[in-house]
Amino acid sequence: MSDASSYNRSRILPDANELVDNILKGDRVALGRAITLIESKRKEHQDIAERVIDACIPHSGNSLRIGITGTPGVGKSTFIEAMGSLLTKDGKKVAVLAIDPSSQISKGSILGDKTRMEQLSRDPLAFIRPSPAGESLGGVARKTRETIILCEAAGYEHVFIETVGVGQSEITVHSMVDLFLLLLIPGAGDELQGIKRGIVEMADIVAVNKSDGERLELAKKSKRAYINALHLFPPKESDWTPKVELCSATDKTGIEEIWTAVGDFQSHVIENGWLQENRKRQAKFWFMETIKDSLFSSFFQNPAIQATFHTMEEQVLESQISPFKAAHDLLKKFLPEG
Amino acid sequence: MSDASSYNRSRILPDANELVDNILKGDRVALGRAITLIESKRKEHQDIAERVIDACIPHSGNSLRIGITGTPGVGKSTFIEAMGSLLTKDGKKVAVLAIDPSSQISKGSILGDKTRMEQLSRDPLAFIRPSPAGESLGGVARKTRETIILCEAAGYEHVFIETVGVGQSEITVHSMVDLFLLLLIPGAGDELQGIKRGIVEMADIVAVNKSDGERLELAKKSKRAYINALHLFPPKESDWTPKVELCSATDKTGIEEIWTAVGDFQSHVIENGWLQENRKRQAKFWFMETIKDSLFSSFFQNPAIQATFHTMEEQVLESQISPFKAAHDLLKKFLPEG
Repeated sequence: MSDASSYNRSRILPDANELVDNILKGDRVALGRAITLIESKRKEHQDIAERVIDACIPHSGNSLRIGITGTPGVGKSTFIEAMGSLLTKDGKKVAVLAIDPSSQISKGSILGDKTRMEQLSRDPLAFIRPSPAGESLGGVARKTRETIILCEAAGYEHVFIETVGVGQSEITVHSMVDLFLLLLIPGAGDELQGIKRGIVEMADIVAVNKSDGERLELAKKSKRAYINALHLFPPKESDWTPKVELCSATDKTGIEEIWTAVGDFQSHVIENGWLQENRKRQAKFWFMETIKDSLFSSFFQNPAIQATFHTMEEQVLESQISPFKAAHDLLKKFLPEG
Repeated sequence: MSDASSYNRSRILPDANELVDNILKGDRVALGRAITLIESKRKEHQDIAERVIDACIPHSGNSLRIGITGTPGVGKSTFIEAMGSLLTKDGKKVAVLAIDPSSQISKGSILGDKTRMEQLSRDPLAFIRPSPAGESLGGVARKTRETIILCEAAGYEHVFIETVGVGQSEITVHSMVDLFLLLLIPGAGDELQGIKRGIVEMADIVAVNKSDGERLELAKKSKRAYINALHLFPPKESDWTPKVELCSATDKTGIEEIWTAVGDFQSHVIENGWLQENRKRQAKFWFMETIKDSLFSSFFQNPAIQATFHTMEEQVLESQISPFKAAHDLLKKFLPEG
């Protein structure tokens, strides 16, 4: 992040109003800088970021937010590049973000290797942003959600959020997108078992990538198997029937059909009101989650709690005190008046 | 609850030490009274209950805690009565508790109709206690867990916790028992789909009840289907392979075989240390859950929060403010120094 380090070096703080003006004009440099402020751990940066987000919120909400998941090797980057390029050719603005809890361990990032979307990353209508490294999933979630707001204020009509198929991160992504697209590869239907049932259940569109050459016949079989499997799930709240499509991101076949399915989904959920309803539900979810998380972390940062927690926990584990009584005793230290 | 109402009328508070002495002697009347104090909403009662629990904790932990679930009509009460009678005949003391979130709506209780366990309820070695009515699942959970402590202190070697197959309550029960028994009826294997996958996954023993008369052949087929289905799940942390057994609670067939399986499970998890480990994990879980719940409810009971929460929520839902900022603004009101 050269932006962050230049701020750090120069200690000159950017101006929130100027950033907002430029973001609203669609300036990619300003957008990138503001996201760097969101990701910064410095209090002064966070304060500016907060003011920028506040000013951008009234201009947000005008994109389709698309979550894309799939196990490593399924071709997510190639797929996003193919689909993104299709859209930018049509004059549409596309933002690509990533949620990558694995970066906590590797300090890497699924979009860090930008060459993986070589074409799209040079496209003036595309904005690609890797996942902030070394963050908890909750931290990444908040930052991603705030980044979506800024991208929308900057006029991006399609925001892709990429995640790797490892469970909890999909659920997090699902709680911030409108449409959830699951990428699979051709197989005898067993693939569905490799991916957790809950993730398949969330999919609005299943795209069977690498459906090309000798794999095409197998891919057609897979499509039927996936359609059958999806029928076993209860109907979605959005009243949308999940679609299964074949594609090859490298051959660029099937991408337009998937885009048509995306458009059908969008019309469907705008028309029946689910899109707005779901976004309200998501906002409420993040509101409540943040309250819970913040309460919990304030509790553990409290000196009186830190001084007694471990002794108390030990007594609970050794059955010397009921967990309920122990919790209430600690609460009394945290909230003496409560 | 005649005990509670007589306390309420007389306003004579029971003596905690006397209750504890009598509970430790195995006195069922004292046990019942103490549980009534646990369930009471009166502060004075809760204070005595807390002292009784504290004194009983060192004498607790010596039972096998068995969760029993199944959809309505599967014959849970008849099954528990058959199994409980088998144990009391052998001189064992058996307690039966219930977790019944549906009682919130019906204000009834799954064990409320005591005639459903007519034989067992007259048995001097058995103690049957319905679920407290009109309580939240969290409230029932705490009270049930504290009731288990008292039952164990009173010398009950087997504590059954009955719940109805509706999802969240099983997860709650699972987090307070050592063994989870799922009751099913004969069927072509489709039954597994009626019960949520997560509940099947928790089962240590699956008992196919009503395996009698003309249903016996179907029951045998079901047994094979369930065994196959259980094989699809990942190995359990306890390293126990779930067993599927046929039984008929009305004909009293297969009950002993299930009891043998229960005994095998118990030896297995005592030997490999999982039982103790799991109980510590459960104690920690309830400790943390109670902290979270209490923080959350203190937050919402705070006058400053009550005065502003709904306006703030409205702004979040209307995208006028970011959910993260809204949450942090509220937190500042709740914890001004934080």
